[in-house]
Amino acid sequence: MKVRAAVAHKAGAPLSIETVDLEGPKAGEVLVEIKATGICHTDEFTLSGADPEGLFPAILGHEGAGIVVDVGPGVTSLKKGDHVIPLYTPECRNCEYCLSGKTNLCQAIRATQGKGLMPDGTSRFRMGGTMIHHYMGCSTFANFTVLPEIALAKIRPDAPFDKVCYIGCGVTTGLGAVINTARVEPGANVVIFGLGGIGLNVIQGAKLVGANMIVGVDINPSRKALAEKFGMTHFVNPKEVKGDLVPHLVELTKGGADYSFECVGNTTLMRQALECCHKGWGVSIIIGVAGAGQEISTRPFQLVTGRVWKGTAFGGAKGRTDVPKIVDWYMDKKINIDDLITHTLPLDRINEGFDLMHAGKSIRTVVVY
Amino acid sequence: MKVRAAVAHKAGAPLSIETVDLEGPKAGEVLVEIKATGICHTDEFTLSGADPEGLFPAILGHEGAGIVVDVGPGVTSLKKGDHVIPLYTPECRNCEYCLSGKTNLCQAIRATQGKGLMPDGTSRFRMGGTMIHHYMGCSTFANFTVLPEIALAKIRPDAPFDKVCYIGCGVTTGLGAVINTARVEPGANVVIFGLGGIGLNVIQGAKLVGANMIVGVDINPSRKALAEKFGMTHFVNPKEVKGDLVPHLVELTKGGADYSFECVGNTTLMRQALECCHKGWGVSIIIGVAGAGQEISTRPFQLVTGRVWKGTAFGGAKGRTDVPKIVDWYMDKKINIDDLITHTLPLDRINEGFDLMHAGKSIRTVVVY
Repeated sequence: MKVRAAVAHKAGAPLSIETVDLEGPKAGEVLVEIKATGICHTDEFTLSGADPEGLFPAILGHEGAGIVVDVGPGVTSLKKGDHVIPLYTPECRNCEYCLSGKTNLCQAIRATQGKGLMPDGTSRFRMGGTMIHHYMGCSTFANFTVLPEIALAKIRPDAPFDKVCYIGCGVTTGLGAVINTARVEPGANVVIFGLGGIGLNVIQGAKLVGANMIVGVDINPSRKALAEKFGMTHFVNPKEVKGDLVPHLVELTKGGADYSFECVGNTTLMRQALECCHKGWGVSIIIGVAGAGQEISTRPFQLVTGRVWKGTAFGGAKGRTDVPKIVDWYMDKKINIDDLITHTLPLDRINEGFDLMHAGKSIRTVVVY
Repeated sequence: MKVRAAVAHKAGAPLSIETVDLEGPKAGEVLVEIKATGICHTDEFTLSGADPEGLFPAILGHEGAGIVVDVGPGVTSLKKGDHVIPLYTPECRNCEYCLSGKTNLCQAIRATQGKGLMPDGTSRFRMGGTMIHHYMGCSTFANFTVLPEIALAKIRPDAPFDKVCYIGCGVTTGLGAVINTARVEPGANVVIFGLGGIGLNVIQGAKLVGANMIVGVDINPSRKALAEKFGMTHFVNPKEVKGDLVPHLVELTKGGADYSFECVGNTTLMRQALECCHKGWGVSIIIGVAGAGQEISTRPFQLVTGRVWKGTAFGGAKGRTDVPKIVDWYMDKKINIDDLITHTLPLDRINEGFDLMHAGKSIRTVVVY
């Protein structure tokens, strides 16, 4: 079938709106009509050429929501008409990782997903004679896409696509880091580095679980009002701190953060996030993605005296299990997504979304089909 | 009273056997007759001058066992005749740290202990007109010493001092790292870097909790036989590995260690210990103490893909609660201490114990009074 897609022909160039050929779903696969998709920093990271694993040409996008229009042989958990959110971290429920009970990093289709291919080793997208790569197993920058059944979360049909698509990455990453990875308990003091989309979702996650102090750290004071709306109790602008940031945060939190979150991808901030943690028990979670080859460092004394250094991917969430719950939370108004979606655009104007991101003017831009 | 002690007059010099003056116990303090003490690498670290917080003159030693001979006013949990093990990590059961349920790092007397003083800010040891510092709150290189009540674990009276003194540091550190900090579960694969006293105690801890593979890593092949006796199932000599050590360990453990332990204090090994952990859930525990100013590094990707970096001090053990239990395990033959105590010396020959350590000829030397 012919589909409309924003094609990334090469790194560093704008996306190109094209008509491409999409092959129907094979065994275990599902054809989904994408109704909305967010534009995430990870799409930008790959499009820019900074991602060493980036493949071109490709159809990017991994934060979508849509409707099942066809299923391939053997698909049992989904049927035509089901509303779904694509999962760049699938949940097969059968691999060693899924069965461990310790991680959400399902490995069932990882090798082919990393090569921009479906599990059978081929792509469903072509243009003329050229194969186009899938991206993060999702490729939501097309109005139709094909995904493995295990990479789709079935959600309630009354949830608005142009809002819950954000649960496909940013919302779940931020909330999940608090709930699944850190397991923040009520009364804990939390410090969040970076008040972009991920940081704001960490804030609302911390508020949801009953954190005490929720300290936001950002050099951009314009983020303060929105962060406060989401639950931030204290704002720290490192540019306005006299002396070093870490002792300032330790003093502010009366001994250090019980939990800290790095939501930027800056290795210097990752170190500060660890070292501002409370002696004896503070846990620091790395969410941001650092540039290729960059390293984190600290003195081992920081760990020997009880701090813990962890990371999270997709907020430690098991997509098919947890994403439908987060959609419910949104519908029940337990979490706020609407105020994070600052811009909505049609597919034809998707490059404007990247421009808004570059200019720091958006929290999340959503493309609607 | 007059006591016999090995005095560290200055860094880098042998200990000097002297008669020193010991003041009796003040309020909340206990006078203990030390019957035996291990010589630990931490004593050596301080005596060598490498410890930036080392204070001189001092009476070193922190791995002892003895008998209460007098108690100061207000002491309620101990009485004359009780058998005890001194605790360099006390357990007051009242401070924020003790009450957190998250750490063993009781802070009740930390400030004065770090200054080589009793909680009232003075020393009980003098020689001529000179004050002699306490060490790690213990000073077990004297046949009598004074400790705060909260820094003494009461143990059963039938346990031999010249064996259970080792529970005062090395045994508890190794076992505790497995049981309290890592919480290794039955069936887990474990990798231990360094097969000295701590590493061997990690091995027997891993065996105690039912680990599956127990992989020991050491460049000294002479440690293999003893480690196997303690439960090691696989030995890896990095000098004999073709290619890099980390992928070798990942392959050996079929995906990586569920838990790894660094028992040397080498920051390069700390990185290898983290990176040989299993994607998704591997936890690496730093036990060894690195040199002043040294740093650990890794790519944040290691953490984002699910590995966890932690540390431990005194094996995460709460001394007054856990040390008596470990003494019971020894008496019930659940753990082996006898084979770790390779040398026993009288106080007059304590410097020979340091020589044995320098020569790599001892696991643990115990001084008996």
